Amino acid sequence: MKVAVYRKAHFNAAHRLHNPEWDEAMNEKVFGKCNNPNFHGHNYELEVKVVGEIDPQTGYVIDMKVLKDLIEEHIIQRFDHKNLNLDTEEFRQLNPTAENIAVVIYRLLREQLDSTFQLTIKLYETERNFVEFPVH
Amino acid sequence: MKVAVYRKAHFNAAHRLHNPEWDEAMNEKVFGKCNNPNFHGHNYELEVKVVGEIDPQTGYVIDMKVLKDLIEEHIIQRFDHKNLNLDTEEFRQLNPTAENIAVVIYRLLREQLDSTFQLTIKLYETERNFVEFPVH
Amino acid sequence: MKVAVYRKAHFNAAHRLHNPEWDEAMNEKVFGKCNNPNFHGHNYELEVKVVGEIDPQTGYVIDMKVLKDLIEEHIIQRFDHKNLNLDTEEFRQLNPTAENIAVVIYRLLREQLDSTFQLTIKLYETERNFVEFPVH
Amino acid sequence: MKVAVYRKAHFNAAHRLHNPEWDEAMNEKVFGKCNNPNFHGHNYELEVKVVGEIDPQTGYVIDMKVLKDLIEEHIIQRFDHKNLNLDTEEFRQLNPTAENIAVVIYRLLREQLDSTFQLTIKLYETERNFVEFPVH
Amino acid sequence: MKVAVYRKAHFNAAHRLHNPEWDEAMNEKVFGKCNNPNFHGHNYELEVKVVGEIDPQTGYVIDMKVLKDLIEEHIIQRFDHKNLNLDTEEFRQLNPTAENIAVVIYRLLREQLDSTFQLTIKLYETERNFVEFPVH
Amino acid sequence: MKVAVYRKAHFNAAHRLHNPEWDEAMNEKVFGKCNNPNFHGHNYELEVKVVGEIDPQTGYVIDMKVLKDLIEEHIIQRFDHKNLNLDTEEFRQLNPTAENIAVVIYRLLREQLDSTFQLTIKLYETERNFVEFPVH
Repeated sequence: MKVAVYRKAHFNAAHRLHNPEWDEAMNEKVFGKCNNPNFHGHNYELEVKVVGEIDPQTGYVIDMKVLKDLIEEHIIQRFDHKNLNLDTEEFRQLNPTAENIAVVIYRLLREQLDSTFQLTIKLYETERNFVEFPVH
Repeated sequence: MKVAVYRKAHFNAAHRLHNPEWDEAMNEKVFGKCNNPNFHGHNYELEVKVVGEIDPQTGYVIDMKVLKDLIEEHIIQRFDHKNLNLDTEEFRQLNPTAENIAVVIYRLLREQLDSTFQLTIKLYETERNFVEFPVH
Repeated sequence: MKVAVYRKAHFNAAHRLHNPEWDEAMNEKVFGKCNNPNFHGHNYELEVKVVGEIDPQTGYVIDMKVLKDLIEEHIIQRFDHKNLNLDTEEFRQLNPTAENIAVVIYRLLREQLDSTFQLTIKLYETERNFVEFPVH
Repeated sequence: MKVAVYRKAHFNAAHRLHNPEWDEAMNEKVFGKCNNPNFHGHNYELEVKVVGEIDPQTGYVIDMKVLKDLIEEHIIQRFDHKNLNLDTEEFRQLNPTAENIAVVIYRLLREQLDSTFQLTIKLYETERNFVEFPVH
Repeated sequence: MKVAVYRKAHFNAAHRLHNPEWDEAMNEKVFGKCNNPNFHGHNYELEVKVVGEIDPQTGYVIDMKVLKDLIEEHIIQRFDHKNLNLDTEEFRQLNPTAENIAVVIYRLLREQLDSTFQLTIKLYETERNFVEFPVH
Repeated sequence: MKVAVYRKAHFNAAHRLHNPEWDEAMNEKVFGKCNNPNFHGHNYELEVKVVGEIDPQTGYVIDMKVLKDLIEEHIIQRFDHKNLNLDTEEFRQLNPTAENIAVVIYRLLREQLDSTFQLTIKLYETERNFVEFPVH
């Protein structure tokens, strides 16, 4: 009786794509306008998927209020209205592509959830570009 | 040549989360405002996924009009504009959480579909909370 | 330099359409399945529009956090997860059609806003049915 | 470290469902109004999913600009503002159901992508009808 | 106490933009790929707005079921799964641009509605292109 | 025979709300987390509305390709993937609130359009916060 439950949240952040091991020309060539040294930004839409058994007492896989609060405390407060490159530990050395942001969010939430739950992160950078991690 | 086809539908219903084996304080603590004895309600958005082989004669996995009519007859007419707790057999004893509603819809449609089809139910309680059953 | 600013919010409620001056047959005829005595429900999507001058100090017509908090305090806390007919003063005597709910929300917010602002309420009962008040 | 990346695109096309081996009555019976000899049309919404490893140099699975350009060149320019039955090689003999269009798009993109990538196509014919291929 | 009520509906149709008084080169220059002689198509999303007084007996401006049925009978059955240029009287001589389709829908619904109602038509040709008529 | 036509576009930008005439405490108090000195960002969704007469030759109010190109050249290329405060002339002295951005976009497009057209700008900063200018 495994069911997947999903919870959506969003945060607004600035970022810049950049590989410090490359020179400017290479960064410009690979990342184009996403390499703008003054940053640009997005409304990130986050979809958290948790798979588990239905608890027969509650009818819940996980209490959505608990899941919502975990996302708020560990993801939204960390990244909302922040400059990912400058204001966060996680992306000081790591390029904040959508792929890498999804992996980081996965790891932050993974340690908050009971290991019996399966966790998947979907992150929309724009309505037309989005990513998912892990791939089962 | 397996393809998945999806059909969306929706219904509006009232419900209340409640475990009759618990006292009021426990119900209030676990279910919060969802335990309101006078009920609240939702626009449930339903996404039915059917996986099967393409029929080379029609180019269809299943005729969408047939699938639409099955959903209308067995799900929408049963739950639309109803109080799930009071007006339906299915939730007289079963807590109408999104998880349980998805499982019930799965069972109702599963018996209408040829066993060669794989079936999955996704149910949106709000734009931000949704569930899926079964998990393959 | 008048600008319109919009803020969206939502609430989930149960309701029933009913005119107590009519007999059951007449109520059934006019309101159909919306007359279900056990109620049904909706995810109401609310769009609040405020028109005013841009304040040259802030660049704001009105601080969105202030507007968000007014909506939360005076509308969402009053109606969210409630049965409109049974749990609220406003609809004890008034039929909770989308039209009437929009008028009630308008009046509740109108007294919270400075009279120099123009106010309009748009209320989505479903994605396909919605109303607006007042009409300027 | 496999991540899925998604890119959306759209195209507008006319089509008609028809099996040339059947007589008119049979076509009319099976395909209904979709069999209209003068065609009808859709805004097709296309979601391309590519699964692969994150490149540690770029933080990308695949450069979204590259993926966007592949979709533009091989799918959009081929099908946008076209009559699928009359203007395209692919559907001269093949019934342009959503299922078949998804399979065709899959094959066209499959040969453009490195074989280390896993590819999935999701195609929305309307907001309520959509398909996915292949099913993993 | 005037309130606006909105009802959404949709239809799928093929069309072609063409001015028979111009030669092919001129048509191609002005209408580009929309001039394809074999047609292309859209999922047209229609939003009908009706302004009137709330009836104190019902709490309705107009019964949404009545409005839904008028749209179904006079618009959807006329245009859904049709080729606007070939299958409809209205666009045999009139170029089926979004602007002209909106005007035609306005006139068809205007004669079905009591003259005390104000009527406005909004028509989405794609998510990014839409029109409204009349402008009050 | 006036018709309104709408065209949507989007751009991604970083910004920071700040009044240089105030001290840090005052800026922090008024703008909160939007005052982050390292910036944050948004996916701005832009809706351009143009009102005019239908040209009987084309059936158009304005050629959507022309309107799309004007928006691309004068708005998207100027603001997309930019830091509004640092990279643009328009917001070097002007606080880039949604209200002010809408006014700036209006002025930039107003000078590109024939004066017989009426122009309105709607700008979505998030799905829940948006503004419109001018108010007619």
